[in-house]
Amino acid sequence: MNINFEILATDPHCGARRGRLSLPRGEVETPVFMPVGTQATVKTMTPEELQSLGVSIILANAYHLYLRPGAEIVQAMGGLHQFMNWDRPILTDSGGFQIFSLAALRHLSDEGVTFRSHLNGATHFLTPEKVIALQETLDADILICLDECPAYGVSEEYVVRSGELTWRWARRCQQARSRWDKPLFAVVQGGMWSKRRREQAQALVAEGFDGYAIGGLSVGEDKATREAMLEVTVPELPHHQPRYLMGVGTPEDLVEGVARGIDMFDCVLPTRNARNGMALTRFGRVVIKNAEHARSSRPLDEACGCYTCRNYTRAYLRHLYVAREILAYRLLTMHNLYYYLELMAGMRQSLAQGNFQEFRQAFYSQREYGGAYSG
Amino acid sequence: MNINFEILATDPHCGARRGRLSLPRGEVETPVFMPVGTQATVKTMTPEELQSLGVSIILANAYHLYLRPGAEIVQAMGGLHQFMNWDRPILTDSGGFQIFSLAALRHLSDEGVTFRSHLNGATHFLTPEKVIALQETLDADILICLDECPAYGVSEEYVVRSGELTWRWARRCQQARSRWDKPLFAVVQGGMWSKRRREQAQALVAEGFDGYAIGGLSVGEDKATREAMLEVTVPELPHHQPRYLMGVGTPEDLVEGVARGIDMFDCVLPTRNARNGMALTRFGRVVIKNAEHARSSRPLDEACGCYTCRNYTRAYLRHLYVAREILAYRLLTMHNLYYYLELMAGMRQSLAQGNFQEFRQAFYSQREYGGAYSG
Repeated sequence: MNINFEILATDPHCGARRGRLSLPRGEVETPVFMPVGTQATVKTMTPEELQSLGVSIILANAYHLYLRPGAEIVQAMGGLHQFMNWDRPILTDSGGFQIFSLAALRHLSDEGVTFRSHLNGATHFLTPEKVIALQETLDADILICLDECPAYGVSEEYVVRSGELTWRWARRCQQARSRWDKPLFAVVQGGMWSKRRREQAQALVAEGFDGYAIGGLSVGEDKATREAMLEVTVPELPHHQPRYLMGVGTPEDLVEGVARGIDMFDCVLPTRNARNGMALTRFGRVVIKNAEHARSSRPLDEACGCYTCRNYTRAYLRHLYVAREILAYRLLTMHNLYYYLELMAGMRQSLAQGNFQEFRQAFYSQREYGGAYSG
Repeated sequence: MNINFEILATDPHCGARRGRLSLPRGEVETPVFMPVGTQATVKTMTPEELQSLGVSIILANAYHLYLRPGAEIVQAMGGLHQFMNWDRPILTDSGGFQIFSLAALRHLSDEGVTFRSHLNGATHFLTPEKVIALQETLDADILICLDECPAYGVSEEYVVRSGELTWRWARRCQQARSRWDKPLFAVVQGGMWSKRRREQAQALVAEGFDGYAIGGLSVGEDKATREAMLEVTVPELPHHQPRYLMGVGTPEDLVEGVARGIDMFDCVLPTRNARNGMALTRFGRVVIKNAEHARSSRPLDEACGCYTCRNYTRAYLRHLYVAREILAYRLLTMHNLYYYLELMAGMRQSLAQGNFQEFRQAFYSQREYGGAYSG
């Protein structure tokens, strides 16, 4: 294990735990939400703004950066951190999910995956070895193995074969490492079959990775299925290593993920929804373009301490959004990330204080109250 | 005169002067550049960022705000300053230029102008009186009279008739004021005829406005014509009142405008060009998408002290721009405004120190050097 991860507290009533991941570029208090910086920028934000929100680690995407601007350029600029002016840790996704969701005409073989770029149609061939070299070239702080993410609804037989490939690729990723100081996480797949999730987790754990990501969720399944998959997978993962739930999700998903023992999350939801005019608050969602906000002198959330809520009315935010002003996207992104970071900080604090269950209950009470509150 | 404007220094070799405009919401050191906040936001920027650049006054557009969100909403939110979270002075353009450049199917009468909104085609009727009431409702700090801006290339006869209308409207604006504490500027038109410019200036000055704007330039004429029009107009304007050159221009235009006695400028160029990927520097223009910047570890300008130049390479800016990341527009806007503000500060300092001619010469030397420098 090349990872320094301490468990600081656990909840006696569920799988939730409070931890600390120590990386050369900084400490990450868990459970943590990692804002998504797909193309070496968390959309609309400067690194200083992220720091002001208390962001301790971000995610970047090896697939996107491989295609544009290319890893050699990032390397020539001193690595991803210097390139984007961010000195705290970065986890790079391997690109597995993107190849299966964005790329055209992908062709899978045991050796690797051939695909056409979603940007210009050029053909590329990536292997587990190349993907590790790519992430090392970017100089990421946590690396992810290349995996196949099966589409929602494929057969169990497909999931089994796909899982075997993901396992073989994970082993090759392990062997391809040249930087043993950088933690490498394997990705647990298994579709929506509990048995396959367990098998996949066991097979990967047997190989001894530094941490484990859970992939292939939030791909179309309902919330109960998603939570059931977490409940069968997490117990198979080593207690003293970090668990990362990939690409999930809503505020509820974060709370339920933490309750089931997840330490790390990423999701485009707070940043993408901001750019689509949706603010996320303790009381639920605010669709800013709605006419009801046109004359509202209220902030998005009276009790929110973010820059946006301290300085701007819903009327102004609506005006900016309707006028397609970039400041709208900035202010809503700032608010949504603040809310996500505060939610995680609240969960960490409640775990440290031994009252996570109360926190979880208060979280749901506020959201129910939201109906009366904003309606 | 409802204006507190001091001339602090003048240049003995040209019309340039250093001044200070004192307004209830703050002092404006002149010559000054006013960033354009058309829709109650300087595109991509927060008010705090503008303040960090030393912006002392911005321009907003009464025409745009009248159409969206509507003056009543701005008023209900406590006025334009509170609406947009900017507590320093705001000058509002009357909308004259926008009605003639953006609106469809405009119909002009002595009474006012009927036009269709460029947003949704709805018909509106604006008069000089309504435009003053609109700007007072917005609670702007400097108001501009409604004028007709003749298109470039119309006949002298048209310009004469148009000038008479602009004069009658200016008188009506003067009479329509209910807030005598807010300075009102008239707009000098006159096309590209020296005689008509002089006549128009004289006729407006006779009415006793608080300041004078020069409109109808940078509409298609060449630089020599533009400068010639300034040279005939400015001497007709009262020495002790501010002179504002509307919607002009390039860095060269600012230097030549100051040399001809202009105190105030606004232009979308630094902000709009930023969003089109063009950085303005002391050495000339940088088109960031050009392939030559793909591997450049240089900042836009080594000697620039702006946030962008202190933290980011051209390679990163190019990557962001090519990837259409909002951060590209922010970082380029930040740089361009910093450059414009620095240029104005440099002119003010040189005027205070009595070496404006040396400053002007150095300005051109650097730009010539730019060819060798960036080529």
